[in-house]
Amino acid sequence: MPNRRDAQAPGRGPMRRSAGMNVPERLRELSWALPHNFLGLDEAASGFERARVVILPVPYEATISYGGGTGAGPGAILEASRYIELYDQELDAEPWQIGIATLPALHLTGAGPTAATAELRLSYDRLLDEAADRFIIMLGGEHSISSAPILAWADRLPQRRLTVLQIDAHTDLRPEYEGSPHSHASVMARVMDRVDLVAVGVRALTRAEHELAHASGSIHVFFADDIHAGDAWIDDVLSRLGEDVYISFDVDGFDPALVPSTGAPEPGGLQWYPVLKLLRRVFSERRVVAADVVELAPIPGLHAPDFLVAKLVYKLIGYRYSLVR
Amino acid sequence: MPNRRDAQAPGRGPMRRSAGMNVPERLRELSWALPHNFLGLDEAASGFERARVVILPVPYEATISYGGGTGAGPGAILEASRYIELYDQELDAEPWQIGIATLPALHLTGAGPTAATAELRLSYDRLLDEAADRFIIMLGGEHSISSAPILAWADRLPQRRLTVLQIDAHTDLRPEYEGSPHSHASVMARVMDRVDLVAVGVRALTRAEHELAHASGSIHVFFADDIHAGDAWIDDVLSRLGEDVYISFDVDGFDPALVPSTGAPEPGGLQWYPVLKLLRRVFSERRVVAADVVELAPIPGLHAPDFLVAKLVYKLIGYRYSLVR
Amino acid sequence: MPNRRDAQAPGRGPMRRSAGMNVPERLRELSWALPHNFLGLDEAASGFERARVVILPVPYEATISYGGGTGAGPGAILEASRYIELYDQELDAEPWQIGIATLPALHLTGAGPTAATAELRLSYDRLLDEAADRFIIMLGGEHSISSAPILAWADRLPQRRLTVLQIDAHTDLRPEYEGSPHSHASVMARVMDRVDLVAVGVRALTRAEHELAHASGSIHVFFADDIHAGDAWIDDVLSRLGEDVYISFDVDGFDPALVPSTGAPEPGGLQWYPVLKLLRRVFSERRVVAADVVELAPIPGLHAPDFLVAKLVYKLIGYRYSLVR
Amino acid sequence: MPNRRDAQAPGRGPMRRSAGMNVPERLRELSWALPHNFLGLDEAASGFERARVVILPVPYEATISYGGGTGAGPGAILEASRYIELYDQELDAEPWQIGIATLPALHLTGAGPTAATAELRLSYDRLLDEAADRFIIMLGGEHSISSAPILAWADRLPQRRLTVLQIDAHTDLRPEYEGSPHSHASVMARVMDRVDLVAVGVRALTRAEHELAHASGSIHVFFADDIHAGDAWIDDVLSRLGEDVYISFDVDGFDPALVPSTGAPEPGGLQWYPVLKLLRRVFSERRVVAADVVELAPIPGLHAPDFLVAKLVYKLIGYRYSLVR
Amino acid sequence: MPNRRDAQAPGRGPMRRSAGMNVPERLRELSWALPHNFLGLDEAASGFERARVVILPVPYEATISYGGGTGAGPGAILEASRYIELYDQELDAEPWQIGIATLPALHLTGAGPTAATAELRLSYDRLLDEAADRFIIMLGGEHSISSAPILAWADRLPQRRLTVLQIDAHTDLRPEYEGSPHSHASVMARVMDRVDLVAVGVRALTRAEHELAHASGSIHVFFADDIHAGDAWIDDVLSRLGEDVYISFDVDGFDPALVPSTGAPEPGGLQWYPVLKLLRRVFSERRVVAADVVELAPIPGLHAPDFLVAKLVYKLIGYRYSLVR
Amino acid sequence: MPNRRDAQAPGRGPMRRSAGMNVPERLRELSWALPHNFLGLDEAASGFERARVVILPVPYEATISYGGGTGAGPGAILEASRYIELYDQELDAEPWQIGIATLPALHLTGAGPTAATAELRLSYDRLLDEAADRFIIMLGGEHSISSAPILAWADRLPQRRLTVLQIDAHTDLRPEYEGSPHSHASVMARVMDRVDLVAVGVRALTRAEHELAHASGSIHVFFADDIHAGDAWIDDVLSRLGEDVYISFDVDGFDPALVPSTGAPEPGGLQWYPVLKLLRRVFSERRVVAADVVELAPIPGLHAPDFLVAKLVYKLIGYRYSLVR
Repeated sequence: MPNRRDAQAPGRGPMRRSAGMNVPERLRELSWALPHNFLGLDEAASGFERARVVILPVPYEATISYGGGTGAGPGAILEASRYIELYDQELDAEPWQIGIATLPALHLTGAGPTAATAELRLSYDRLLDEAADRFIIMLGGEHSISSAPILAWADRLPQRRLTVLQIDAHTDLRPEYEGSPHSHASVMARVMDRVDLVAVGVRALTRAEHELAHASGSIHVFFADDIHAGDAWIDDVLSRLGEDVYISFDVDGFDPALVPSTGAPEPGGLQWYPVLKLLRRVFSERRVVAADVVELAPIPGLHAPDFLVAKLVYKLIGYRYSLVR
Repeated sequence: MPNRRDAQAPGRGPMRRSAGMNVPERLRELSWALPHNFLGLDEAASGFERARVVILPVPYEATISYGGGTGAGPGAILEASRYIELYDQELDAEPWQIGIATLPALHLTGAGPTAATAELRLSYDRLLDEAADRFIIMLGGEHSISSAPILAWADRLPQRRLTVLQIDAHTDLRPEYEGSPHSHASVMARVMDRVDLVAVGVRALTRAEHELAHASGSIHVFFADDIHAGDAWIDDVLSRLGEDVYISFDVDGFDPALVPSTGAPEPGGLQWYPVLKLLRRVFSERRVVAADVVELAPIPGLHAPDFLVAKLVYKLIGYRYSLVR
Repeated sequence: MPNRRDAQAPGRGPMRRSAGMNVPERLRELSWALPHNFLGLDEAASGFERARVVILPVPYEATISYGGGTGAGPGAILEASRYIELYDQELDAEPWQIGIATLPALHLTGAGPTAATAELRLSYDRLLDEAADRFIIMLGGEHSISSAPILAWADRLPQRRLTVLQIDAHTDLRPEYEGSPHSHASVMARVMDRVDLVAVGVRALTRAEHELAHASGSIHVFFADDIHAGDAWIDDVLSRLGEDVYISFDVDGFDPALVPSTGAPEPGGLQWYPVLKLLRRVFSERRVVAADVVELAPIPGLHAPDFLVAKLVYKLIGYRYSLVR
Repeated sequence: MPNRRDAQAPGRGPMRRSAGMNVPERLRELSWALPHNFLGLDEAASGFERARVVILPVPYEATISYGGGTGAGPGAILEASRYIELYDQELDAEPWQIGIATLPALHLTGAGPTAATAELRLSYDRLLDEAADRFIIMLGGEHSISSAPILAWADRLPQRRLTVLQIDAHTDLRPEYEGSPHSHASVMARVMDRVDLVAVGVRALTRAEHELAHASGSIHVFFADDIHAGDAWIDDVLSRLGEDVYISFDVDGFDPALVPSTGAPEPGGLQWYPVLKLLRRVFSERRVVAADVVELAPIPGLHAPDFLVAKLVYKLIGYRYSLVR
Repeated sequence: MPNRRDAQAPGRGPMRRSAGMNVPERLRELSWALPHNFLGLDEAASGFERARVVILPVPYEATISYGGGTGAGPGAILEASRYIELYDQELDAEPWQIGIATLPALHLTGAGPTAATAELRLSYDRLLDEAADRFIIMLGGEHSISSAPILAWADRLPQRRLTVLQIDAHTDLRPEYEGSPHSHASVMARVMDRVDLVAVGVRALTRAEHELAHASGSIHVFFADDIHAGDAWIDDVLSRLGEDVYISFDVDGFDPALVPSTGAPEPGGLQWYPVLKLLRRVFSERRVVAADVVELAPIPGLHAPDFLVAKLVYKLIGYRYSLVR
Repeated sequence: MPNRRDAQAPGRGPMRRSAGMNVPERLRELSWALPHNFLGLDEAASGFERARVVILPVPYEATISYGGGTGAGPGAILEASRYIELYDQELDAEPWQIGIATLPALHLTGAGPTAATAELRLSYDRLLDEAADRFIIMLGGEHSISSAPILAWADRLPQRRLTVLQIDAHTDLRPEYEGSPHSHASVMARVMDRVDLVAVGVRALTRAEHELAHASGSIHVFFADDIHAGDAWIDDVLSRLGEDVYISFDVDGFDPALVPSTGAPEPGGLQWYPVLKLLRRVFSERRVVAADVVELAPIPGLHAPDFLVAKLVYKLIGYRYSLVR
């Protein structure tokens, strides 16, 4: 749980600078609220230069299905994150110490999914140029935004084929959807020629998607009902992952009891601890180059799912920096 | 996930006719939204003549407990169903192809439960006359509506005693409730002389109900906490079912984490996959004559439970037509 | 208030046909709920052939501002309309008798505003070809959809310049917005070369919009605060209208106390009776060729604004057919 | 605004007795919350014996229209009333001092409207026998409950014909509705032979209702749009009232901007101050025998309308005891 | 499920007395609603004198975190409790028969947490003096209220050290929080010198709290993820409990899928049946002196979590009186 | 309506710096969302040094009445403000150009109202020292926070007695409330010895408050119902104001139809245009030294009231800088 800024609180200390302005010296020591960045970190802990992690909010919402509202996702995650305990007892670590910079939200053009995807690609490339070896976590917004960073990473890893580990209720392999090839339901079709796909938690797809995944040598689907049978599936998943992994986490992969706040809440989804176990293994045994967490559509008045997703993001950061030697 | 109508989409193709009117030829090929029937099926797939399944919405709500709102249940199920994937990967089938006709909502009299039950019985009998060998799934509405179809079926199966498989948090065996013998809390008391009852998922009942069930040779109650102990209970349940089974599914049988949208959300309910496993067995090994799904009281803004219930209905259809030889 | 279908209720009588299917003869006389068309009219009253009014729902939502949710607007209006009294006591008439056909929702492409606007234009032209002299009321969806019908009508009235009577809190005259020239905030900029504009109820605009309106001879803006001063403004508005008028009604023209369910609820808006008075005069003294009602973004659980908008639509129909000789 | 009980606060002083039990002496002086009766009055101020006013909650809801939820109305009014200031500055009085007893909620049978109406009549008669000259305000619940008290009063005033002053958006004069003659839409048809009716604020009715009111010599309808034209209508209303008046206040008489929390929120309704002005005159110049306030259907999370209705009830009490000599 | 009062319903029979008043004899037999005490018990079953259980609602909310709203917790629990079945089938008992008195809500001063804690301590001591050997269950309200009863009990058990069994997502061991030593996040730091602490279900804490618990010999923390591994943890927990146990149940100990209605809904919490199993053992094998259930922050419109917490309270009562010889 | 940052948009141009960090040069020109300060202004327009206006959010909530939730007020106002048009057509001005700095939220101690008030006083004094001649608008939070700035200003204006213009439904003159002298219901009692009070829009108060106001020569109360009678009241109000005015605006002064989102939504409140008219006169004819806007308690999902309040704040700024010569 957060607190007001406090000279004694590491990571949530006194204010030096507020949104876009230098704060006069004598006002800095007042008991200001935590800033609206991921975890509510102070300037030292969230400055871009020093940070090893960059949070990129992309509240893009264009090809709405049932529900909608993913445009409010990143804001809800950031808000919730300010109430997360900085200490991670599973890891006995304070992962924030690595430095976590939160960029402002990237506001993509309303000229349609194709234009928006292109704009995001350009912005992500620019960010990659600057962020160099930082770990970028993109917060959606709808799943359609994942193709830009995945392809950007595929281009930067010419020697080795990137694997996308996709946690998702759907395969998102439609050739197009709602009249657009850049829809959330077709995002993985946009990247499947360039990367290997390992989809985990799937429980709704078309026959065509099923056949496509089956026929392809580079797509592996782990259905949610198989996962419920035991733990061996984690070894299976690992065995399908290449050395370099991009994690694309659609929160509808979780069971709707945990995250009802999403457009297509398919019953029978993943539980909290199994997901953590999988991620822990992946970060320990592979090189995760970047990640995104998408499709949270916050329900006004129901903040538990936002909290869960914020904690998931912090676990990603914790695993990334605690488990790798 | 649905899409607009599309000449290429089997089951969700071009419009021929809209609610109560012939649409001019030249307007048919526009990109209309899916119709508001179960699954948003096109005319070919949802015409009454060809359909093997009939959905009968009965948004009746009269004897309200805590919560209320079941009158909005059928509408919410139909709306959610339009976003369900037509392909069922568990069955590797497209159960919609059997044809699913959705009737308009039956609007029962407001003159009280007794009159409403009588009116429903009349209507259901009329429907049975017409629907012949079709599989009718009634969507409630409160549980009180189940007695009419159950008794209609009992009358049509004079040689063999019908078993009602009741998924429910309660036994609904009170002699009367809220001043009426036709309440949702007494619906099974209305039919117990004519059918065998197998109640699954029960976790709240009166002492009198408990004793009645115990004393009776034709009522078997499977408590929810026993079910949580393992899988052998499915064999037990099956062993109690006669050859002909009517399924009456009160959605409060599910755990409230999955379906909080119901009047009496008793904790400790059934989970998604165990319920599917049970139903799959029942449809494989017995003749299910008809079914109802009742007591969904949608919460504005929270559509995940509606989605789950819509998917449950589609699983009933899938099991009915894929598993029977 | 509605009732179930009833042989005695003119306009809401027995069912002949349900969504996309012929209902068996013997099932027709059951007490079915009203259909989900505007007012819940029966087949005789809502058939396309005989109807003098056509309702075209276009739940398009692409360039979201604060709030969002206009995609659910048409559905909420139709639902609310079923509870509207068919008799209009102001007019001492039953305007439904003229026949009101409700088309299914038109589902525009997700490929971006430009493509969607083009698709709508095509569809509207097709509808105009078919609907001939019927009065078409388009239900939005966001305001960006208005340019297509306005330009379609401008093309069909080559001899006389069409006036658009725009009820709105904003002028919507931006050259572009959110990266698109076809945004809801720029819809009137798309048509201003082809039609005269009379905007009523405006209370938020950019300096550039203000100057553009000022400089132009064909744009007249009536600010909401002037309107609050008295009634003479109605004469003024009338004096600016040409013979042929298209009404584009953005529901944010109303005061947010009446319609909080909209994206940009500017305080100080129009009240119910003054709006009716204005519309009554316009229909009496001009030829209204068509209309749209847009930007309702329903709030789950708050149905009063939906009801108001549905009644507004019915008043448009009533004025159109009762006031014209 | 309320406060905890306090020896110094007249009307909201120390506890003697709690719901159904005698509280031990030494516990009485703790800082207990206000009780859940109207205004949160202490035992001295709310005891039945001394009280001149009796509040009778009847959360009956049976013939649901659009919305529903009136069953929660009385509870919401009582809860809101606890935050009302006891001093009435308009009257420079503390009307609570007259004593206001709040009965528990009367829970009518679920066996249908006819049975429920009969049960209520019996209960109301019993209450009249006991309450003698107390002023009874019944809180609904749906409007159907008004016929019982009206007819009870008509029976007790054999020499003079009672007038019902009905504040309402509708006339409620249908012969039946939803299959029942005891529906909220037909409540005034049930009493019109026995009393004179003066309906104020009407803005939705059937042609048949209009004609019935017109033809009858004992029904006068004041339409809401006439009322908006000025103040002379109050004289008109008064001139139609007999000496003895029963006030039946359907909260949908108010404009939906004030009370959106009702089943059929017709736009163009009454404002707060004109209603008070009318009521003040009525209480000053006539003998009001009893009243009811019905059809509040609280919206979860939106308490302003509940507060308004609670204050309306307190104004009724204030006018009743301050204005009569 | 509840019913109206009924001469035949044991525990929910006819009314003798209503909130703060004697009801006239002839009105008692009307069909009144159940009273707003725990379970809606009648006077015989809920009178203070005879009751073995006392429910003390303390809707205190002062040091708000993310969410807030715990002040509405006790009211929601009481409301929900009225719909709970009186018969407990797990225990084959009717625990209400022991008598359950519900006090009015204790309204603590707004002068700050220190003053409020002192006031509560005084009130609780007074209650202990009166209640003698009754089993007191305090309903929060935020967790900060637990220190007063815990210390009151510690003082009354001078010979034996009391153990606090704390079900909680957090350890609440901060020295202070939000500027106050009497915050919900520091409540256990206030008592740890006087009692042994056994915290179960913890999954968020600071490093300092972790170290404090580790270093202390009298604090044992059972992390939620360990609990998910099996059942042996119950023996472990039991082994840490002294003979006298006070149960402090923070509902955020439950998984947020079950109880999202709390301020800091940490994912990965406890499930329903394991919690019952633990409690059953504790009540069987130890002397539970008193309990509290805190931190429910009801979400308007979502009553399932309120229902679960009400049932938890009833299970506490059932275990207390059925399992002890 | 806002837009993404754009080199061409004055006031909402490219990003230089983000929350607490310098953004790398090459990332600045991406299409970032507007920052979360008042109006979403860019660095040039919102830097502290240059700004003539300072927004101070104080989300303090301690002495909760009915409703609660004012702690979320400042955040909701800032969020809504980003969608406000920068151009003010009433004033034909762009008031933002004066520079508006938004400070982070001040997080007051949870140790109780007295400590919190003291802490706020200290912080406000510090801010006054720094802000010199800037116009400070404090955003609440509950009304209790107003005493600190009022007394700070009274101390700084020793020669002339400050007038507080209080727009409010209540007088807030109780000696104490909920056990604290620093409650929202007693805030004006805390300052009345030091300043003149002019309360406008009052419609609920205790008899003691009424008498206190009457007896005092330095308190004038304008009741809401008088205001509804015409416009002369503005002259009256002006005549009571001294030369130096502090505006304390409790949003419950507005009618609940406009702002239901507040703790005690008294019916019969002020309308939008009359309030603007009053404020315009005050700013033209007096020296307004500072202001606060308090008691907004946002309702999740209902953003219209937040928008109105944000616009009110912008009108205060506009009047302050456009009307003063």
